[in-house]
Amino acid sequence: MIIVLKKNISKKEKEDIISRIHSCGLTPHISQGTERTIIGVVGDERILQAKPMDGMKGIEKIINILKPYKLVSRDFKKEDTVINIKGRKIGGGDFSVIAGPCSVESEEQMMMTAEYLSKKGISFLRGGAFKPRTSPYSFQGLGREGLEFMKRAASKYDMLIVSEIMDAQDIELLYDFVDIFQVGARNMQNFILLQELGAIDKPILLKRGMSSTLKEWLMAAEYIMLKGNSNIILCERGIRTFEDYTRNTLDLSAVIAAKNISHLPVFVDPSHGTGRKEMILPMSLASKVIGADGVMVEVHPNPEKALSDSAQSMDFNEFDDMFSKLEGFKWPV
Amino acid sequence: MIIVLKKNISKKEKEDIISRIHSCGLTPHISQGTERTIIGVVGDERILQAKPMDGMKGIEKIINILKPYKLVSRDFKKEDTVINIKGRKIGGGDFSVIAGPCSVESEEQMMMTAEYLSKKGISFLRGGAFKPRTSPYSFQGLGREGLEFMKRAASKYDMLIVSEIMDAQDIELLYDFVDIFQVGARNMQNFILLQELGAIDKPILLKRGMSSTLKEWLMAAEYIMLKGNSNIILCERGIRTFEDYTRNTLDLSAVIAAKNISHLPVFVDPSHGTGRKEMILPMSLASKVIGADGVMVEVHPNPEKALSDSAQSMDFNEFDDMFSKLEGFKWPV
Amino acid sequence: MIIVLKKNISKKEKEDIISRIHSCGLTPHISQGTERTIIGVVGDERILQAKPMDGMKGIEKIINILKPYKLVSRDFKKEDTVINIKGRKIGGGDFSVIAGPCSVESEEQMMMTAEYLSKKGISFLRGGAFKPRTSPYSFQGLGREGLEFMKRAASKYDMLIVSEIMDAQDIELLYDFVDIFQVGARNMQNFILLQELGAIDKPILLKRGMSSTLKEWLMAAEYIMLKGNSNIILCERGIRTFEDYTRNTLDLSAVIAAKNISHLPVFVDPSHGTGRKEMILPMSLASKVIGADGVMVEVHPNPEKALSDSAQSMDFNEFDDMFSKLEGFKWPV
Amino acid sequence: MIIVLKKNISKKEKEDIISRIHSCGLTPHISQGTERTIIGVVGDERILQAKPMDGMKGIEKIINILKPYKLVSRDFKKEDTVINIKGRKIGGGDFSVIAGPCSVESEEQMMMTAEYLSKKGISFLRGGAFKPRTSPYSFQGLGREGLEFMKRAASKYDMLIVSEIMDAQDIELLYDFVDIFQVGARNMQNFILLQELGAIDKPILLKRGMSSTLKEWLMAAEYIMLKGNSNIILCERGIRTFEDYTRNTLDLSAVIAAKNISHLPVFVDPSHGTGRKEMILPMSLASKVIGADGVMVEVHPNPEKALSDSAQSMDFNEFDDMFSKLEGFKWPV
Repeated sequence: MIIVLKKNISKKEKEDIISRIHSCGLTPHISQGTERTIIGVVGDERILQAKPMDGMKGIEKIINILKPYKLVSRDFKKEDTVINIKGRKIGGGDFSVIAGPCSVESEEQMMMTAEYLSKKGISFLRGGAFKPRTSPYSFQGLGREGLEFMKRAASKYDMLIVSEIMDAQDIELLYDFVDIFQVGARNMQNFILLQELGAIDKPILLKRGMSSTLKEWLMAAEYIMLKGNSNIILCERGIRTFEDYTRNTLDLSAVIAAKNISHLPVFVDPSHGTGRKEMILPMSLASKVIGADGVMVEVHPNPEKALSDSAQSMDFNEFDDMFSKLEGFKWPV
Repeated sequence: MIIVLKKNISKKEKEDIISRIHSCGLTPHISQGTERTIIGVVGDERILQAKPMDGMKGIEKIINILKPYKLVSRDFKKEDTVINIKGRKIGGGDFSVIAGPCSVESEEQMMMTAEYLSKKGISFLRGGAFKPRTSPYSFQGLGREGLEFMKRAASKYDMLIVSEIMDAQDIELLYDFVDIFQVGARNMQNFILLQELGAIDKPILLKRGMSSTLKEWLMAAEYIMLKGNSNIILCERGIRTFEDYTRNTLDLSAVIAAKNISHLPVFVDPSHGTGRKEMILPMSLASKVIGADGVMVEVHPNPEKALSDSAQSMDFNEFDDMFSKLEGFKWPV
Repeated sequence: MIIVLKKNISKKEKEDIISRIHSCGLTPHISQGTERTIIGVVGDERILQAKPMDGMKGIEKIINILKPYKLVSRDFKKEDTVINIKGRKIGGGDFSVIAGPCSVESEEQMMMTAEYLSKKGISFLRGGAFKPRTSPYSFQGLGREGLEFMKRAASKYDMLIVSEIMDAQDIELLYDFVDIFQVGARNMQNFILLQELGAIDKPILLKRGMSSTLKEWLMAAEYIMLKGNSNIILCERGIRTFEDYTRNTLDLSAVIAAKNISHLPVFVDPSHGTGRKEMILPMSLASKVIGADGVMVEVHPNPEKALSDSAQSMDFNEFDDMFSKLEGFKWPV
Repeated sequence: MIIVLKKNISKKEKEDIISRIHSCGLTPHISQGTERTIIGVVGDERILQAKPMDGMKGIEKIINILKPYKLVSRDFKKEDTVINIKGRKIGGGDFSVIAGPCSVESEEQMMMTAEYLSKKGISFLRGGAFKPRTSPYSFQGLGREGLEFMKRAASKYDMLIVSEIMDAQDIELLYDFVDIFQVGARNMQNFILLQELGAIDKPILLKRGMSSTLKEWLMAAEYIMLKGNSNIILCERGIRTFEDYTRNTLDLSAVIAAKNISHLPVFVDPSHGTGRKEMILPMSLASKVIGADGVMVEVHPNPEKALSDSAQSMDFNEFDDMFSKLEGFKWPV
């Protein structure tokens, strides 16, 4: 940690700062510059996270050198985390596809989708039963009934279920149905939810918040991992910027960074990330080529009648085209 | 609602769209342009929120004309909402101050703060017992114990308590302690929480999400109000932009807009909105001058030792200066 | 164009609006809704760009339906624009690489770079002689001397020169040296420069402004094309967002969109777009896979001693690795 | 300056770094931490701006401690800069108003405006003769003729002229007409223009770029001042964010910061900053209360017929109301 002192700091203020550093068992190294004095703090500066110094008089600013996350970092664990769910793997070199409708709407819809996807060899069926919607007047999901539809479809076609959890109170309910708990962008910093999901034994797919920095995203994963659950899939889904041609701005550089910094598998959601059907194919290919571990995409038997996200859902023909290109595409060459 | 059709739309696709509009009990008005045909949909277009058309073939885009919110709008209720809490009012021309430390740290700290603030005539004591922190290694709040410290201080000095709720499960616990439930920026779209708070009989202070548009903020309030609770205080606390000199970019234009569009009282949080102590005074004055109903600020008996937000907390002397300027400042003249 | 009228519009105001539409030779179509009246304006609404209506009383908002650009659009010209410069082509299915140092620093540096790149079969040598630098204390480029170094290197190794123009006054000077004029992100809306470049007979590489929307970027190209120069290469180079891990956020969705909407070739600059050397390879591959026409990258004989952008410049070994992967990578399969 | 070394840095790399620091006449202070080594560089680190080290092997990152600007800083000059233009002052405690139409459209328009404003005691008349417009199909300004209209109006009513310069080539032309050269947001980093304006003897009003950080804005002013012209007025005009209710997000915290950091006068442009007429009054008052030196606003004899910015221009009645409130408002109390 570097502490930059104010130009006009008093002797007393400087002594207070130095004595506070010592009181935490850390060692200050003082560099006297022509215009500013800086103090390098040696030792595990994370000690100071619980006892912050930034309000002390005479301090201009504090610059942290160490990364604020530990467990999710490759410094902590070198090898890629591979998640094994009932014999299906995520991470470690494979490229996986999670697919299905935005919302569960009917049993027939889920059966048709699961039948179609399972024939393609896809193992992961997505579908929302609890839907976070901007408007209270929009379709809010079928709830438990939706989970049941999905469960029957997944059982019949031997698929695994990925579905969103909106509140810690629903963990028990969802536990009987889902194989992977999805945490949505709006809940990325719902710390209660993260901590309770850290205590269960099923994998978590953690979407990046729409205005979260890479650091905050990794810290959210750290919350889960610190409670004991290390089966976490990070999922980039676009960030909010000034550009309104796309629903969000898909940030593939965050995927490259997350793969470099962390051992966790990283997915991309090009459906929400762009909000435009014609971009799902190219962005899926791009995700594969930059080293993502998979994509999560929206597919619907009849997107024109979908109750949510219809503009960004592929129908089966469109999915066919995308999937065959994605499969045909060998990488690294 | 305006539906812009694709240039190359087929006759069949056009008919499908028109028949879908009729099936919702709405009337289409067709305008044939030289390059594009557009359909104006007449009738309450909100009907279509639950049955979206945006995935239909032949549609280039859909433009909503009506505002998506109803209850929070001045179209619904012309006069300012005034919230009366145990005889203290918020809104309706008064300018109120909510003050206190970021986190409750000890009973002594709360007693000192409440004693000081109540002497100034301030009615609302803030303090966090449950703290949403980016890092799991940071101080997470004292929980129930913190609420008790705050309660004792508030009782002794006849103040009302404003404190943050992080999860719907805690409503019952907090209900016995707080007078105003604060929903933090990270929870602005925690729809479960919003709905459950809509069912209680205490006011809600709803902070704007850090990347929420004005529309999304108002829709979040609509979630609460639709469940029956119309005692909502909107609170601007800065949005996330590229500028990093300040912690956030305080968006006062959103305050002016919210006051124009909605009947709800609107507060400003210049402490989080700027993250810089020297900006709290000018931004509080600016908030008053543009018509906000109050400010929420951080004050601490000893900011240098604060466990959170110490850089943006005022000590009592600094608060004195700010408060006297704010009081002395008569507006409108 | 759609004009949404205010709820409380007067008869007189409405008549004024309608008569203004007629006076422009356009036809109004009125749709009376339950809450709002809207007017669809039929005819070439671009007529109104020079005679705007948005300040007229009684208008709530105006929504443009037609795209504001014409010449750069695929509606105007269906086939890809292929730029032919002294026998070398850009666009039309080929994937090209423009490479070289950020700044021209010495004749030796340019000779080494050109020798190396030409052996790889690369035709386009980049190098800045006039450098737009945030700080007046930073290296500002060698100016004319730099152009001469570059010219000698390009001649000897039969390469073409891409270099940045910072001001319309320099067109004549640069004209004798460069084969492609580069317009930097900070100048994307320097309309005088755009117009003067529209009158010359050499291609323009137009970088996207760091906070420009897709629409503004295309409008900047329209400025050039309207003056007669249709040899324009669009170049995405990252946009400014809240994320600070990367220098900018490379927006590949804008590349997909620009390719769909416009007939112009589109390049990607992953060096500036990410500011991180380790991301240049994956982002170059991703650019190729999504259909970009090429990349522009920074390579330097000795990045450690580069006078600008040293952190994002590859040395020859790093470039070798990238280039062979990019070449080896066949797409579409 | 702080240099953070990579964990796995080699001995040779470390020595290279230290010897480079010495070769610049600076002194390295090494602090060996448990996880990282950092080097504090003592001496005027700006020496390194022209000889950057960030590409050297073994360096993880470089953190600058000193501010990159000098001349514009209060460290360089303590007292407020007061600009005296033909007896009228800007800065130093006064609050000034610059007003006029967005574009000069006719002599009559300028005469009416100048007559009206001069009666109010306003000294500064704005009006654009050269207009930077997103679309080449929009009105581009009357050019020289517009300047003449403005000059006649200003002479007759004894006002000073503020008008925008779009290109360094026009300095000579504008010099005969304008009293304050305005640099628009899109040209804030047109470094050629800035440098040439640094060599003239008339004041410059420098708007903040729409995605410029505070630091970049001050650096742009540094470019001007370094060439000898220290009569610079900074002008905040809103930044680009995700929020689209307003045209831009007016960032008043940047005004507070600029006043603290720099000795230059700081203005606010609430017309462009919000793009909404109803916000000009409250934002002007807020600008005054936070310590800005003035506002620049758009006023037009007949906004409904304005050729640009009509939605954000006040008519004379609206201006009357605003101006009397602004005048009546005494601050500090």
